[in-house]
This record gives sequence, structure tokens and C-alpha cells, in this order.
Amino acid sequence: MSSGYTLAELKAHLGGEALGDTSRRYSGVASLEHADEHQISFLVSDKHLAAARASKAGALLVPAALAERISQPRLIVANPHAAFARAIGLYHPEPVAAPGIHPSASIAEGADIAVDAHIGAHAVIGERARIGPQSRIDAGCVIGPGVTIGANCRLHANVTLYAGCRIGDRVILHSGCVIGADGFGLAWEDDHWLKVPQVGSVVLEDDVEIGANTTVDRGALDDTVIERGAKLDNLIQVAHNVRIGAHTAIAACVGIAGSTRIGAYCQIGGAAMIIGHLEIADRVTISAGTFVGKSIREPGTYTSVQPFMAHADWKRNAAHLRHLDHMHERLKQLEKILSELERKSP
Amino acid sequence: MSSGYTLAELKAHLGGEALGDTSRRYSGVASLEHADEHQISFLVSDKHLAAARASKAGALLVPAALAERISQPRLIVANPHAAFARAIGLYHPEPVAAPGIHPSASIAEGADIAVDAHIGAHAVIGERARIGPQSRIDAGCVIGPGVTIGANCRLHANVTLYAGCRIGDRVILHSGCVIGADGFGLAWEDDHWLKVPQVGSVVLEDDVEIGANTTVDRGALDDTVIERGAKLDNLIQVAHNVRIGAHTAIAACVGIAGSTRIGAYCQIGGAAMIIGHLEIADRVTISAGTFVGKSIREPGTYTSVQPFMAHADWKRNAAHLRHLDHMHERLKQLEKILSELERKSP
Amino acid sequence: MSSGYTLAELKAHLGGEALGDTSRRYSGVASLEHADEHQISFLVSDKHLAAARASKAGALLVPAALAERISQPRLIVANPHAAFARAIGLYHPEPVAAPGIHPSASIAEGADIAVDAHIGAHAVIGERARIGPQSRIDAGCVIGPGVTIGANCRLHANVTLYAGCRIGDRVILHSGCVIGADGFGLAWEDDHWLKVPQVGSVVLEDDVEIGANTTVDRGALDDTVIERGAKLDNLIQVAHNVRIGAHTAIAACVGIAGSTRIGAYCQIGGAAMIIGHLEIADRVTISAGTFVGKSIREPGTYTSVQPFMAHADWKRNAAHLRHLDHMHERLKQLEKILSELERKSP
Repeated sequence: MSSGYTLAELKAHLGGEALGDTSRRYSGVASLEHADEHQISFLVSDKHLAAARASKAGALLVPAALAERISQPRLIVANPHAAFARAIGLYHPEPVAAPGIHPSASIAEGADIAVDAHIGAHAVIGERARIGPQSRIDAGCVIGPGVTIGANCRLHANVTLYAGCRIGDRVILHSGCVIGADGFGLAWEDDHWLKVPQVGSVVLEDDVEIGANTTVDRGALDDTVIERGAKLDNLIQVAHNVRIGAHTAIAACVGIAGSTRIGAYCQIGGAAMIIGHLEIADRVTISAGTFVGKSIREPGTYTSVQPFMAHADWKRNAAHLRHLDHMHERLKQLEKILSELERKSP
Repeated sequence: MSSGYTLAELKAHLGGEALGDTSRRYSGVASLEHADEHQISFLVSDKHLAAARASKAGALLVPAALAERISQPRLIVANPHAAFARAIGLYHPEPVAAPGIHPSASIAEGADIAVDAHIGAHAVIGERARIGPQSRIDAGCVIGPGVTIGANCRLHANVTLYAGCRIGDRVILHSGCVIGADGFGLAWEDDHWLKVPQVGSVVLEDDVEIGANTTVDRGALDDTVIERGAKLDNLIQVAHNVRIGAHTAIAACVGIAGSTRIGAYCQIGGAAMIIGHLEIADRVTISAGTFVGKSIREPGTYTSVQPFMAHADWKRNAAHLRHLDHMHERLKQLEKILSELERKSP
Repeated sequence: MSSGYTLAELKAHLGGEALGDTSRRYSGVASLEHADEHQISFLVSDKHLAAARASKAGALLVPAALAERISQPRLIVANPHAAFARAIGLYHPEPVAAPGIHPSASIAEGADIAVDAHIGAHAVIGERARIGPQSRIDAGCVIGPGVTIGANCRLHANVTLYAGCRIGDRVILHSGCVIGADGFGLAWEDDHWLKVPQVGSVVLEDDVEIGANTTVDRGALDDTVIERGAKLDNLIQVAHNVRIGAHTAIAACVGIAGSTRIGAYCQIGGAAMIIGHLEIADRVTISAGTFVGKSIREPGTYTSVQPFMAHADWKRNAAHLRHLDHMHERLKQLEKILSELERKSP
């Protein structure tokens, strides 16, 4: 094949040390399971060694520790997962959008759009909004008045940014996400809820990525902030005045209630729910499905999940959850009686 | 009334056997509770017999087993729920959208749109996208480059399809759903996350329906697949490389993490959360709110739900959840002491 | 400073009694923690007294009970939280949208739009839809045929309303919310699901607010109804035929399954999940994360949450959740043996 990359070329892009035929050309990337002889794949640890040996992949990206344990042509790299991510990018370069503003886009007065930015069909750019160099705003996005977007951002179709949000460089926003909607601020007055105007904003720092249909509310008075390099998956709720630390990764369906501060380098599993006004330290891991009801001051992994069972077993067991306190009382009572008996016993 | 259907006409459309006045004309459909004498309703089992007898409905769709237990004019059918679904359709035919492309829609070069398809206002159709016969793309939808959509599909307003997704025939997508956004693929490199390009796609087979604001991510290398006839409700997350089997129904707010495979004919209750890389067998039912943390190999119903209580009771009981292991140790200790005592006892 | 308000002016707007310098002008509002001498803040209870004393705020809104316990200039009001909400509005008046229809909007025949309504760029208004006086429909909204929207409503960008929904006055809908999509109605027929047409509608009464990306499904036969003054946060699912009572507030990520009726003045915490066909009484509070599996007939607070733990502790404890019934049996057995022993014991 004339297209693709040889191991020598991959080494030039990814670094590392090539072993085996370095001139053969590979046409694509694939998983160990699905790769054919024309494709490259990767392995990270000896957990994948059996799959790697069974794989039909033409070449592999491997860590030094496993380089002698496979026989395929290979590129030894320090971080095979990262190197493979780069290899995917080589084989599947992101299509470049032509600079310029689609004629159907609606651009308000005073909007400031870099000449090499791309504005898609039917996108709406509000007054005084600023779109930085090489940023790409896809079809149907609505960018509110006064929003600032840095350089090299990508807003996929149908993203909504409310007025005044401030977006850094290289930020990626997926379709349907809503940044800057009003926080859920209500004051009870006599016999009804009074809306508390939400006049803070949202700041997304550099290299943040936000998934599809995720919502990040604007702050009540101060700002909601997602620090640099944090990554959020789909359908996540970030309430007003939350702060998420740098390089924290949050899986889908998580909810974070108002004013909670999550540290840097945390990992939050899917569907975890975190109540408001908490502090989560740096480097905390929260397991999927865990409900976090109080602050976490120490790094570590935290969990609260009910194991599932066959429904009949669950019915039998769950009934006792309503009576744990009573069970505990009975246990104490037994201990007391028994220690009496023991005392009396010969 | 001159409009509507007689029992004889309903029988012609729905099959079955009519009992009672077959020439009277009924103007609409309603629930047993709200129907009046001009409307038809239905019952499925003797659970609804009292309600059916009390109902003012002019006629009923009934199963044979109950036909003699009510007195209203009735149509005896094999499957009253399905027959009633069809009757609703007779009384409320879906408005037909005029074929053609709204003048405000934005159609990229090379898009291939069937002459009898409907493209709504401000819809955006990407390069090389294909829209099949009689499919309807409502206002504000954004269809990425290279997407293929089969025949007789309905995309409600403001749906987003990323590049390259492949949609079968008779697929229904509700507003705000996002198909084909990047999976949550990250590789850790030194001190930050590196994005792993997501180059798989999404395949929605024939007769799939996807609810409002549901997200289905594209695969990392291979495709995310939802098989024929599967039905997904609103606000569901389907992560990259998930496969959902044919005719599986999933209620709202469910999350399914990456690479999990769910079998055919499953029923997943609302807000269930399923972690990644699992296998769920065919014909598995998962109760609402259940957290699925390991594979399920056998058909059956599975549950993991904490019963709710008055808050004070919960506080008293929940405290012990942190000490179950200790309670268990104490129980073991008691058993040991007691067996000693019994041995010694005369 | 020449702009802003004096205590005397604030008193004219908010009521109450001013103490201290009433002629000094304050330029803005802020939290106790972040306010400077030019800004006003507020306190509600003695819980905030220390923070209020330490605050640099130039003036405070206070309840009478605390008026003598701080030294700053202050406005004594009956409800400081509500008064402060109004003060925020004074300092941050909502920008007024110019009446009229953006030239890029698509207005169907027979739509009836009040002359002082605002229709944003690329909005789509369906046939026979009615938009009331001073209502504002932002960019990218799609309003289905026959929808009615009252006066003084605000639909933020990219809201979708399906055909026939009925929206009262002063309703606020945030971006990405979808009102009136089909309920999840399916009838099993032989070997596949048959769609049950959803021909009810959605009614949102006056003063309802719905958060970003929340979904409210249309009723199957009858309507889904959210009563006046109810407030819903982001990413909530309201299934078909649910009724939510007046002035009930629901935090983010809640799911409410079909036909459940929630009373008035309820408060539902984030990520609570409520199954279908239940009745929840008025003035019920449901804690965040609680799974509600049966009806609640009495006012009060209800909870079902698993406390989280360090992962190792959780593993040790959670194992016993599968064996609670067995633990209970062992406990009963011990009690029996022990009462035997006691009887025999001298």
C-alpha cells in the first residue's frame, strides 16, 4: 500500500525505538481484537499480553517491559496509550473547516470574529462576542452577547453559551451542552418562590472538554469555574458556583450541586452524585454510582454502592435495611445477656 | 356524529370480533377513567375490570377472556394494548409533512436527499449526507458530513448527528438527542489528559427510537451499535462501543458505560446505571435505580435499591451500614461463645 | 460614585427600615465573603453572623432579630433573602430585547405573534402557534404547530416545544429543554415493540421555570401538567402524564416516571428517582439521591441514601448487604438458644 506509515515514520512522529521491519507500510489503527496485518495496535500491560500474541495486528506499540514478550514488529514507547492516541490522530486527521462565516450565520453588531475562525450555518453570534483565531463554531450554535472564546476552540453543532461566558483556548464543547444557564436560585416569599437573579458567569479555562448535553450553570454572584485541562463527559450537571480543579476527569451522568469545590487531578465515576457546599481534596477518586454527602479531605478512593442481586434475594435482604438499628439493638442485648451468663457460668 | 369509526370499521382495521351495536360511531379514544360515551377505551386484564365496568366509555377493546364480564359494546382482540395503540393512530393520524426542502435549510454540496423527503426550516445537511425516501428532518437539525439516514425516518427538531453516523429505516430521533459525539477517551500523559481521537461511528439499525436529549457516543475505533427495534427513552447516556441488542427497551436516565454489551429483549428500568466492559445476557430485566457493577449471564430480574424511610429512621439505620462488617464479627463472636456455653451447659 | 443606590433608595424599592448612613451610594451586590465597601450583602440567620461581622460589605440587608448585632449600615427587612434577590435585580436589570421578529426567523402561516414579542435569529414558529405580549423567544428555538405561549415568557436559545403544548404567563424555559416529546409508550406485539402514539399534550402553568436540557414528555392520552409556580432545575426527566403540584421545587438530575402525581409545595433533592404511578402528598421533602419506590401519603422528609466510605471499608461492609437475611436468621437463632439457656440457668 502506498498510503499509511512505516514503523520508521511512526517513530519519527511518536518517538521510541523500532524493532522488526521498519519499512513496511501500515494503513490504519485498530484494537488488538480487530486489527488485521495492515494495521497497528497497542498494549499497555501484561494483562493484554495474550490478546497481543493472538492479535493479527501488523505492528504494535509496546512498553519496554513487554518488548521481548511479543514477536510482531513493534515500536517501544514510554506511554503506549498516549502514543497510540497520537497514532490515531495521524491516521485520522481532523477535517479542517474552511475559515470564514457561513452566509446563513447571524452575526450581531460589534461581534469580533478572528479572520481564520469558522462560523457554521445558522450559527448565531451575539453582540460584542469575541471568537479567537482558528476557533470553529459549528452549525446551530448560539453564542450569547459578550461571550469570549479563545483560540483553537471547537464548538460542535447546537451548543448554547449564555451571555458573558469566558472560554479559554483549545476548549472543546460537544453538541447540546449548555454553558451559563441560570443557577437554581430561589428565595421563598410568603407563598411562592422568587427567582434570585444569577449574575455570576462561567469560566472554562484552557484545554477543557465538555460532553454532549452537559449543563454548566452560571454563578449566582461569583463565577462557576472549570480549571484548565479538566474533562467532562456527557449529561453532567454542574451547578452554580461549583469549582472543578485542573485535570479532573468526570464521567457521564454525574451531578454536582451548588458551591461544591472539587480538587485537581480527581476522577469521578459515572452517575456519582455530589451534594452542595462540599470540599473534595485533590487526587480523590470517587467510584461510579457513589453518593457523596460530605466533604472528602484526604486523597483516596471512595465508594457507596448497593450491590445488585436477583430480585427475590434483594427483596429478602432489603427488608432488613429498614431494621438495621433494631438488629443492632438485639445484638447488643444478646451481648449483654451472654456476658451475664458467662460471669455466672462455672 | 359523522366523523369517527364504528365497531364494524374498527374491526376492519384492527381485526377481532365485535359484540354489541356495530353501527354506532365513536369519535375518539380515551383512558377508562376519562372516556365518555362517544369514546372507546380498552382493558388488558381483570386488574382493570372494576374500572372498565365503571367507565363511561362507549365501547371497549377487550381480550376474549374478559369479553363476557363487561356489558359495553366491545371488540374482542388478541392483544388489546397493541390494538388500542393502532386505534389511537387511526383517530390521531400523524400530520404529513410536505415533501421538499425548506428554503431556509442549508444543504451542503454533494448531499443526496430523496425527492419525497422533508427538510425543515434552518436544518443543516452536511456534505455527502444521504437522506432516504419519505424521511423527515425537522427544523434546526444538524446532520453531519457523510451521515446516512434510511427511509421513513423522523428526526424531530434540533437533533444533532455527528459525521458518518449510519441510521436505518423507520428510526425516530427526538429533539435534543445527540448521536455520534466523541466517546470519553483519555490517555494520561505526564501531567495532563491527552484526547484519544474517537474514529468509530454510531449505527442505529431499523426501527430504533431514541428519546429527547439522549446521547449516543461514537466508538473509539469500532462502532457503537443499537440493534433493530431497540427503544431508548430520554436523557440516557450510551458510551462509546456499547452494543444494545434488538428489541431491548431502556427507560429514562439510564447510563451505560463504555464497551458494555446488552443483550436482546432486555428491559432496563429508569435511572439504572451499568458500568463498562460488562456483558448482559438476553432477556434480562434490571429494576429501576439499580447499579449494575458486574456482568449478568442469566435471564431474570435483578435489583439493588435502598428502600427509602422517614429521614429520622434513615439516620438511625444508615449509621449501621458503615459497621455491617463489625456487626457481623460480633455475631460470629456470640455464636462462638454460645456454642461453648451450650457445650458446657448440663 | 454616581451610579448605584443609597440605603434610602433601596428602602424605597425593598421596604424595611434603614439604620446608619442612608445617603452613601453602593455600586453593587456581593456575597458576604467577597463584598467590598462599595457593595451590599445580606444575612439571613445568626449562622452567618460571624461572616457578616468579618465582611467588608458597605451595607447589609438584615432581619430585625439581628439588626443590633452588627455595626454596618443596614436595611432591616422581613425576608432578607427575598429582598436581596430583588436588590440583585435592581443592580443587574435583565437586558430588554427589542420587540420584533429577527429577519432570519422562520414564521409559519397562521402564527399569531404579539407585536411586542421578540423572536430571535433562526427561531422557527410553527403553524397556528401563538406567542403572547412581551414574550421573548431566543435564537434557535423551535415552536411546534399549535403551541400557545402566554405573556412575558422567556425561552432561552435552542428550546424545543413539540406541537400543541400550552405555556402560561411568565414561564422561563432554559436552553436545550424539550417540552412535549413523545412519552415512552410501547405495546409488545408478537416479537417487537409497537409504538403507542402519544396524543396528550403538556401544560406548563404560570410562573413555571424549567432548567437547561430538562425533558417534559407529552401525555399518552391526557396531559402532562406542571402547576403554577413550580420550579425545575436542569437535566430532569418528567415522563408522560406526570402532574407536579404548584410551587414544588425540583433540583437537577431527578427522574419522575409516568403518571406519578407530586403534590404542591414539595421539595425534591437532586438525583432523586421516583417510579411511576405513585402519589406524593403536599409538602413532602425528598432528600437528594433518594429512590422513591412507593407512594408517600404524609408530609415529612424521606431519605434512602447509602453513605459512602473509603473503598476498602465499603468492600468489607457491602459484602454483608447480600447476606442481611442470613445475618438476621442467625440473630434469631442466637436469641432462641439464649432464652433456652436463660430458662435453664439457675
